[in-house]
Amino acid sequence: MLPKSVKIVEVGPRDGLQNEQGLVPLAAKVTLVEQLAEAGCSVIETGSFVSPKWVPQMADSAAVFQQIKRQSNVRYTALTPNLRGLEAAIEAQVDEVAVFAAASEAFSQKNINCSIAESLERFMPVMELAQKHHLPVRGYVSCVLGCPYEGHVTPQKVAEVSHQLLEMGCYEISLGDTIGVGTPVKTQQMLEAVLSCIPANKLAVHFHDTYGQALVNILIALQQGISVVDSAVSGLGGCPYAKGASGNVATEDLVYMLDGMNIETGINLKKLTQAGLNMMQALGRQTNSKVARALTT
Amino acid sequence: MLPKSVKIVEVGPRDGLQNEQGLVPLAAKVTLVEQLAEAGCSVIETGSFVSPKWVPQMADSAAVFQQIKRQSNVRYTALTPNLRGLEAAIEAQVDEVAVFAAASEAFSQKNINCSIAESLERFMPVMELAQKHHLPVRGYVSCVLGCPYEGHVTPQKVAEVSHQLLEMGCYEISLGDTIGVGTPVKTQQMLEAVLSCIPANKLAVHFHDTYGQALVNILIALQQGISVVDSAVSGLGGCPYAKGASGNVATEDLVYMLDGMNIETGINLKKLTQAGLNMMQALGRQTNSKVARALTT
Repeated sequence: MLPKSVKIVEVGPRDGLQNEQGLVPLAAKVTLVEQLAEAGCSVIETGSFVSPKWVPQMADSAAVFQQIKRQSNVRYTALTPNLRGLEAAIEAQVDEVAVFAAASEAFSQKNINCSIAESLERFMPVMELAQKHHLPVRGYVSCVLGCPYEGHVTPQKVAEVSHQLLEMGCYEISLGDTIGVGTPVKTQQMLEAVLSCIPANKLAVHFHDTYGQALVNILIALQQGISVVDSAVSGLGGCPYAKGASGNVATEDLVYMLDGMNIETGINLKKLTQAGLNMMQALGRQTNSKVARALTT
Repeated sequence: MLPKSVKIVEVGPRDGLQNEQGLVPLAAKVTLVEQLAEAGCSVIETGSFVSPKWVPQMADSAAVFQQIKRQSNVRYTALTPNLRGLEAAIEAQVDEVAVFAAASEAFSQKNINCSIAESLERFMPVMELAQKHHLPVRGYVSCVLGCPYEGHVTPQKVAEVSHQLLEMGCYEISLGDTIGVGTPVKTQQMLEAVLSCIPANKLAVHFHDTYGQALVNILIALQQGISVVDSAVSGLGGCPYAKGASGNVATEDLVYMLDGMNIETGINLKKLTQAGLNMMQALGRQTNSKVARALTT
């Protein structure tokens, strides 16, 4: 049974841009976020409050939040891996924050220098402070369909970490195929394991399109009743740990599919496409969205 | 119920290359066909016996058939729109031929200058001669999910034309989303209409990836029990009638998906990828296959 509407979480400004090699001008980021909101995106991951030492691209997230003209019906969200990040996010008046854990021990060690259990412990004070401020917290789980270091990741491990994040107070769990290696049957098996302990309305899926499999895996998620999908305009992004990683699934391609299926998103494809093309012009690169290419050539 | 194995019909050397702007050297075509066979492709659409006035890229098809070293377990096929083409194909010792009709009247008129009914009539003598020579004939139906001139194409019309081709003696009908506009629900509805009069084991699907929807539509076809899929190595191809048409679905991306689903194809992904990269080098362009890019960067 397919959902009647899908909430798209636009992650381009954060997950998309954080891996850009050259620094992206602040003004271009502000324009992108504003144009995404105008296109009808209702949740926009706008920045990340992390150490600029680790993620230099996100060093100006506070400035982005300060400069954007906000729309009342849009949620502007940010990643906050620790208490200091959360305090900065609160100061910047973000609408929602997110924490993240891996489903792979090796990835957790390499990415954030601690075990999965330790990472969850570190999030405890973040969860507490966020709750005090009535800030919804989203939980990301990475490497749900494979790890660049460990290879196979079991569906049980994904379910376990997801459940722990939910128990800690996350209102939604986003299951991330960080390196884009997933295929339909494995996606279905992973989702079935997670759905055995978490209801579909608390789950989101987050696919990178490294091997061109993102949309097909999203279809499997929709068929399983999941109705929240992360994507990045223009297919921005990539993962520094994945060879040839080609970014998140492009929001334009996702919206085109959902439009064709009569599944509502509230997003205007034409405006969305233009927002993406404007950012690609600022980056001096071609879009990764096939829809954007087809609509403009 | 997903199929256990899928027969991939590699259409790169014909449907892929026929729209190339610059002439492709004969030697590069021969190498491509031979390397595809070495990679395990069991059906290779090798050329087209049409007037070089209409499709100059295929003017050397007879030479390609003459020069390739053939493998006994591979079927080398060709498009033969008329009796003269079929005679040339027989002369070239092709293993299988194909005829084509549109599911859209407007497309039929613009593409081959006659109505759908007239096009089917014209194929009658082709079918007869092919049968006399014990040559299997494949039937292509184009525009099954939309037409660049008419827009919407009804599933009933697709079913009707497909059924007529089958009645005329085609052993397999390949349903083509020529301009790549299809999305999953419409694909399913179209397939359901066709499956109401033709069994799944006589059907193939043929998707162009203009809007990035090819794989997701192929998954729908697999879920409906169809187990023959057309694709082109490197995502070669395009349609001169479709704005921004980005070619056939890339065989590499399809094989990656099927490998991940434990669905057998008999194709070696690494050798296939190399065959495609060699052709792209000859063309001086980047591959359209995300898998090929991920595996080589």
